[in-house]
Amino acid sequence: MTQVTTPAGASTALLTDHYELTMLSAALRDGTAERRSVFEAFGRRLPDGRRYGVVAGTGRLLDALQQFRFADAELNFLREHKVVDDPTLAWLASYEFTGDIWGYAEGEVYFPGSPMLVVESTFAEAVVLETLVLSILNHDTAIASAASRMTAAAEDRPCIEMGSRRTHEEAAVAAARAAYIAGFSTTSNLEAGRRYGVPTTGTAAHAFTLLHDDERTAFQSQVDTFGPSTTLLVDTYDVPNAVKLAVEIAGTELGGVRLDSGDLLQQAREVREQLDSLGATATKIVVTSDLDEFAIAALQAGPVDGYGVGTQLVTGSGAPTAGLVYKLVSREDSAGELQGVAKKSKDKTSIGGRKFALRRRDPQGIAEAEVIGIGTPPTDDGDDRSLLVPLVEHGERVFTASLDDARKHHGTSRGELPPTARQMSRGEPVIPTIYEQ
Amino acid sequence: MTQVTTPAGASTALLTDHYELTMLSAALRDGTAERRSVFEAFGRRLPDGRRYGVVAGTGRLLDALQQFRFADAELNFLREHKVVDDPTLAWLASYEFTGDIWGYAEGEVYFPGSPMLVVESTFAEAVVLETLVLSILNHDTAIASAASRMTAAAEDRPCIEMGSRRTHEEAAVAAARAAYIAGFSTTSNLEAGRRYGVPTTGTAAHAFTLLHDDERTAFQSQVDTFGPSTTLLVDTYDVPNAVKLAVEIAGTELGGVRLDSGDLLQQAREVREQLDSLGATATKIVVTSDLDEFAIAALQAGPVDGYGVGTQLVTGSGAPTAGLVYKLVSREDSAGELQGVAKKSKDKTSIGGRKFALRRRDPQGIAEAEVIGIGTPPTDDGDDRSLLVPLVEHGERVFTASLDDARKHHGTSRGELPPTARQMSRGEPVIPTIYEQ
Repeated sequence: MTQVTTPAGASTALLTDHYELTMLSAALRDGTAERRSVFEAFGRRLPDGRRYGVVAGTGRLLDALQQFRFADAELNFLREHKVVDDPTLAWLASYEFTGDIWGYAEGEVYFPGSPMLVVESTFAEAVVLETLVLSILNHDTAIASAASRMTAAAEDRPCIEMGSRRTHEEAAVAAARAAYIAGFSTTSNLEAGRRYGVPTTGTAAHAFTLLHDDERTAFQSQVDTFGPSTTLLVDTYDVPNAVKLAVEIAGTELGGVRLDSGDLLQQAREVREQLDSLGATATKIVVTSDLDEFAIAALQAGPVDGYGVGTQLVTGSGAPTAGLVYKLVSREDSAGELQGVAKKSKDKTSIGGRKFALRRRDPQGIAEAEVIGIGTPPTDDGDDRSLLVPLVEHGERVFTASLDDARKHHGTSRGELPPTARQMSRGEPVIPTIYEQ
Repeated sequence: MTQVTTPAGASTALLTDHYELTMLSAALRDGTAERRSVFEAFGRRLPDGRRYGVVAGTGRLLDALQQFRFADAELNFLREHKVVDDPTLAWLASYEFTGDIWGYAEGEVYFPGSPMLVVESTFAEAVVLETLVLSILNHDTAIASAASRMTAAAEDRPCIEMGSRRTHEEAAVAAARAAYIAGFSTTSNLEAGRRYGVPTTGTAAHAFTLLHDDERTAFQSQVDTFGPSTTLLVDTYDVPNAVKLAVEIAGTELGGVRLDSGDLLQQAREVREQLDSLGATATKIVVTSDLDEFAIAALQAGPVDGYGVGTQLVTGSGAPTAGLVYKLVSREDSAGELQGVAKKSKDKTSIGGRKFALRRRDPQGIAEAEVIGIGTPPTDDGDDRSLLVPLVEHGERVFTASLDDARKHHGTSRGELPPTARQMSRGEPVIPTIYEQ
């Protein structure tokens, strides 16, 4: 048992459920492993009451796919623990995905049934990717879907991601990335800055004020170090006193003050008035403290210049997982013909057959429906937009959109939705999903 | 911008919020950085309605702490992005935690206010650990706290962790570990097997049945490969037909059948009857399908031999984060005297001063209260148990409990609680938190 907090190597191959390898083992033995197969990732529904979801994680998934290799360390574990037999180990040793993957571009909005990822390959090559595909898409999509509602509620006011401490340390990095795609401006997470280029920000916590003998010394130190444009945290003791002190020390060019407790709307109004009366009319007010999209919407009525969002962002604001599934929808039969397949379990029906998708739009470019073609692409009415883009061709990654591309794409995609998409109240998906055969 | 899915090196140093380094920078400049300080991690409350929580992540945190080093890669990022100034970079380059850490043993139950981690060091050394400490403890504690309710509800029936696909790929590994501490028997996650030695299990998904031309061929293949002791998934098409077929193919020594949809209680009863009538009286019934502690409690009335738990486990069954905070509670003043400190923000008060804790027990060993001493340890009545154990002494890790130790400790600790701790209904913490000064 090795005690490490990150994988010893760069391999992502064991981020996999045991049963994928036992299925592989049996399929290799009975000859079905090489059957051409189509797996799809999709959500049966959106989180309760949401109007749309946001695809995220695609870029991370393609990175992880390139590292999905079984080297000695991985094979030795599987051998020692008798997870699979020797022929399977031999097959895994040379594993490399050689098939094709299509998907919704990262940042795209999605609806129930949207085929956000379509993996076409042999059964063997595709089945072992189930857990990796779902872990990444389920997490990042859940975060981006929540984040998009927050940035929509905040309109042109910036949202700052600061939830790292409330989620797994690596999930935190991915959450910062997903939030950025969905319109957040910055993150507190330094690793997200290094790894993905997300802009990072931060000034001080209550601990900094408490460290000093008094608030004056703390504020003076912060202003001496970072200049008057810094943001001072003013709710450690008494807000009006702290605001007065902040302007006294930093002058009227004080960059900002942060409020992290109490009735934020009421306090923001009082602080704005106080700042203005002190001549600090350009000093910004940033609020934090367990905000979610509903709290942000309510605070839009107040003089707030930025929202710091933590817990509710990284936990998906009530929907910490997107609930996506990865299902075999089509495979060769013994005659070599592709056949749509689906289980018949009572409460979890799937629709067999490979899917294609387009967003039906009216002549003004407003989305009207998610149209899903089974077996063949749906017909473009002239104003529609095809949704599946090639991600991997014959094992080679072809999708190379940057994080900023994804962020921009999300803006465009969300911008096409009818205005009701931005309603905070619970409701149905903002456009219906229509299947065409 | 490097595109990697796991940190390039083993350093955990940038899993940190930007503001920790800016605070450090200002404190180094004003001379307060070296003030002796005590930070504590605790929860202001348990998740809504829970009777107790379970500390987990301690072992992972101590691993991560050993890797908290600023090497060239980390320093270059901070320099290029002007996060901190040169003197701070120089200080970080030689960073190594040299202080002391105490904490609740991993697997211990906790209550509101329990000082589950106490970090005593200089301000500078301790403040930069905030995010790492909280990310790890908040995640793992949330999972273990939910998992413990599930294993309590399942009594002597085994629980299988299979939620990897519903959470971030690295959070999945940590979740499997936390669930094991809280009494889960096995996980589906292979990386958790390799990294932490958690036993792994798995057989087949619906995709395996659908891959084959018919259910018979699929079952035959699985039994041929793994022998009759395997577990067959019987709800792809029609459950009674599948059960009949399963016993026909594997014989009465069939290991198990798995149900993954529909009314599980009703189906388990029907399948048990059918299996018994076919002579397969020792064949086990495993159920899966969005189970949580409430569903498990309800299924205890049926002939179920094991529970596979996914989504609700890895999302903390409604509480995906433990909501723990990391607060400066004491620090030297300008005269070199340790002073308790606490912010006075209206809705987030903390209690200043270094904490000690014991679990008050009656003569029968049943827990009666969480007694927290401020500044000095509370008095042991004779049957009590001291809760803080040394984790790190002068920078050296001294806590080396294995994962199995933690699992055992959880069993003992939970076993001390009054029986009402196992009630599924929402309520107050099962024992009160009492502060002694």
